Amino acid sequence: MTMRVVDLLRCVRDGDPVSAAELKAFIDGVGRGEVPDYQAAAFCMAVFLKGLSDELTVALTLAMRDSGEVIDLSGVPGIKVDKHSTGGVGDKISLPLAPLVAANGVPVPMISGRGLGHTGGTLDKLESIPGFRVDLDVERFRQLVGELGVCLIGQTGDVAPADKKLYALRDVTATVESIPLITGSILSKKLAEGIDALVLDVKVGRGAFMKTEASARALAESLVRVGTGAGLKVRALMTRMEEPLGRTIGNALEVREAIDILRGKGPADTTEITYALGAEMLCLGGVAKDSAEGRRKMEEAVASGAGLAKFRDLVEAQGGDPKAIDDPDRLPTAKKTTEVGAAAGGYVTEIDAYALGLAGMRLGAGRSKAEDPIDPAVGLEVLKSVGDEVNKGEAVARLHHNGGPAPDSVITNVRTAFSVGPSAPVRGPLVIDRLGA
Amino acid sequence: MTMRVVDLLRCVRDGDPVSAAELKAFIDGVGRGEVPDYQAAAFCMAVFLKGLSDELTVALTLAMRDSGEVIDLSGVPGIKVDKHSTGGVGDKISLPLAPLVAANGVPVPMISGRGLGHTGGTLDKLESIPGFRVDLDVERFRQLVGELGVCLIGQTGDVAPADKKLYALRDVTATVESIPLITGSILSKKLAEGIDALVLDVKVGRGAFMKTEASARALAESLVRVGTGAGLKVRALMTRMEEPLGRTIGNALEVREAIDILRGKGPADTTEITYALGAEMLCLGGVAKDSAEGRRKMEEAVASGAGLAKFRDLVEAQGGDPKAIDDPDRLPTAKKTTEVGAAAGGYVTEIDAYALGLAGMRLGAGRSKAEDPIDPAVGLEVLKSVGDEVNKGEAVARLHHNGGPAPDSVITNVRTAFSVGPSAPVRGPLVIDRLGA
Repeated sequence: MTMRVVDLLRCVRDGDPVSAAELKAFIDGVGRGEVPDYQAAAFCMAVFLKGLSDELTVALTLAMRDSGEVIDLSGVPGIKVDKHSTGGVGDKISLPLAPLVAANGVPVPMISGRGLGHTGGTLDKLESIPGFRVDLDVERFRQLVGELGVCLIGQTGDVAPADKKLYALRDVTATVESIPLITGSILSKKLAEGIDALVLDVKVGRGAFMKTEASARALAESLVRVGTGAGLKVRALMTRMEEPLGRTIGNALEVREAIDILRGKGPADTTEITYALGAEMLCLGGVAKDSAEGRRKMEEAVASGAGLAKFRDLVEAQGGDPKAIDDPDRLPTAKKTTEVGAAAGGYVTEIDAYALGLAGMRLGAGRSKAEDPIDPAVGLEVLKSVGDEVNKGEAVARLHHNGGPAPDSVITNVRTAFSVGPSAPVRGPLVIDRLGA
Repeated sequence: MTMRVVDLLRCVRDGDPVSAAELKAFIDGVGRGEVPDYQAAAFCMAVFLKGLSDELTVALTLAMRDSGEVIDLSGVPGIKVDKHSTGGVGDKISLPLAPLVAANGVPVPMISGRGLGHTGGTLDKLESIPGFRVDLDVERFRQLVGELGVCLIGQTGDVAPADKKLYALRDVTATVESIPLITGSILSKKLAEGIDALVLDVKVGRGAFMKTEASARALAESLVRVGTGAGLKVRALMTRMEEPLGRTIGNALEVREAIDILRGKGPADTTEITYALGAEMLCLGGVAKDSAEGRRKMEEAVASGAGLAKFRDLVEAQGGDPKAIDDPDRLPTAKKTTEVGAAAGGYVTEIDAYALGLAGMRLGAGRSKAEDPIDPAVGLEVLKSVGDEVNKGEAVARLHHNGGPAPDSVITNVRTAFSVGPSAPVRGPLVIDRLGA
């Protein structure tokens, strides 16, 4: 490294210029374990408090991508498009989205993660389908993206180790909520998939990582600018995340909802988000001239059954039971259900997504620690949405659980997660804005 | 610890309040090695960029003091007063100052350090006196402060280990130049000496750590406020440090100059600083009602020979050769001297203290690494001061060296350290300001 680390830290600290090559050398050192944790931690705090230019965030992103394995999909024809969501409770959108986009001829190489805390993970949801394997190797992943147009797996090998190192340090040094560091972390891993284009779902609201529209917009704009600077075609949707997305929380329950969406019978909100994201993916993938045409093609892939067929083929190709797609009762089912009644009569004014996410976790659908086991069958159904009228004691949610009775504290937490008032609130649109060329 | 470290870091990062107890718990953890380096490094960067309130800097200071051994001098009567300088080239003030103040009846328990880089250390200077020991134990230190009124030693045992840890991390994370962190580091170590009062010499200028008057004033004010908050009587002098202090750089050479000062024959600048600092120490020590009276008492202790006698007693008590005080030729003497001529004729307009400090180090008077040996005899005399007239080639400095001839590069560096111009510059007063009650 030509520049000493302490000198680079001084420049970042003072907002003085450093070259992309100097930042790359630093990140290379982080990835190889040559930069001590204390210097990497000081870097994170300096970036948190002083920011980082787009040019350097691009350099950070590319250096983190190149610190590990980068999948080469250049042999697969077409514009490879993926989607990334900043995460929300009940967000099962990847499951219907990927096959619907692939059914329209745009290859979707999707590498997903597992759930932790109050949010679930796409891999856990897929694994609730009997036999489904998410641990395919890169060769099989490339083959399926080429032949089937879609494959959904977990991280292979050593993807972006420099990001892993910085991410772990950010978690314990109060430097998580930094737009350049979040941008670099998201994009470096996505770029390592070998994609050409990316659609981002940046969630806004109480149930999201970004609580305010301003902070979500800042992140969305950074992702678009930096992603573009790193050579990707990028669009971002800012979408509302106040209450849980859809009607289900819990792995097999969410697969059922995904199948409903593919059959055209899904809840309004998850269907809307699926179409909106898919429309942008089809635009970036070059098969739709604008969002309206993209949306029409998404609807057609539902109406024709092409999306459901693609999902069935995907499940079969990845070792899962394809019959479960047509007969969801073959999915794991909890032994017991318990309905939770409204605390008062009136209109549902708010549903606390975070509280419901935690309730799902406590029933066994999620993990509080990475090594915790999960139960694919359990979770909860959201029976009343914001704006719905309820009578006192009328069921607002249905818990699906195994073992003993549902714990009273979970029932109480779910009940109080539903706020009831004298009138239905006015809600803004689900998609707040669209960013990117 | 009641507050998680990551939550404390978040508060410091955001400038949100934390309690003194919470900060103390964090520093306790640093001192015991329980807080990982990466969290301590993130703390330093957050404090660097966001600052720290005086109240919390007091808490930081006291917690760092209490992380290690604190000397109890409560059994020694009188107000114990020490001096701390932020460091400069040719700064041998402690040597004449401590005995002159002690000769006036104010106990001076002084714990000093060694030199590194371009600046020398009081311990190294004292050790150039044959036989002088700086490694006395705490019991002997306490006894000498009580009986003789003065003792000068190195750090005993485990003083402020939390400061040692943070200081080492600051050095490699670009967080050295932080006023709260500097304040805490200086004061925690001084408080661990068991002193009641402290006079600070905050240097300003090219040859000092603080290059500008504004930054030096900010540090001086912080030291006074925080020192007072930590229970000390504190005064600070801001003093000019553009050129080297006095006429000598190098350990035995500086002892000679110290003896000259005690004899009333020292250079004007070092004599002035000695009197100015001593006057404040005598005020804080309760034997002078104001600075003017303090200064008079300092001058009297020189005129009467009481200061020199106290130094002689000190040297003898700490194992050194007391005859060297009356016959400085008994001090180590270099085998060779080499005069360096002025590059041009005119008036000396500037002398680069940093360059001369480095030249002294290269001749063997200082260390580039902590484990380097030093030669007590070598160094250099500054023969021309700023404002003096010189002819081209006339000697401006005399190198004292052992071994081969003086390296050409050292001669060149010393020559170019003296700027010569057509007229003598206007210089401000040596003591720029006095702060503190």
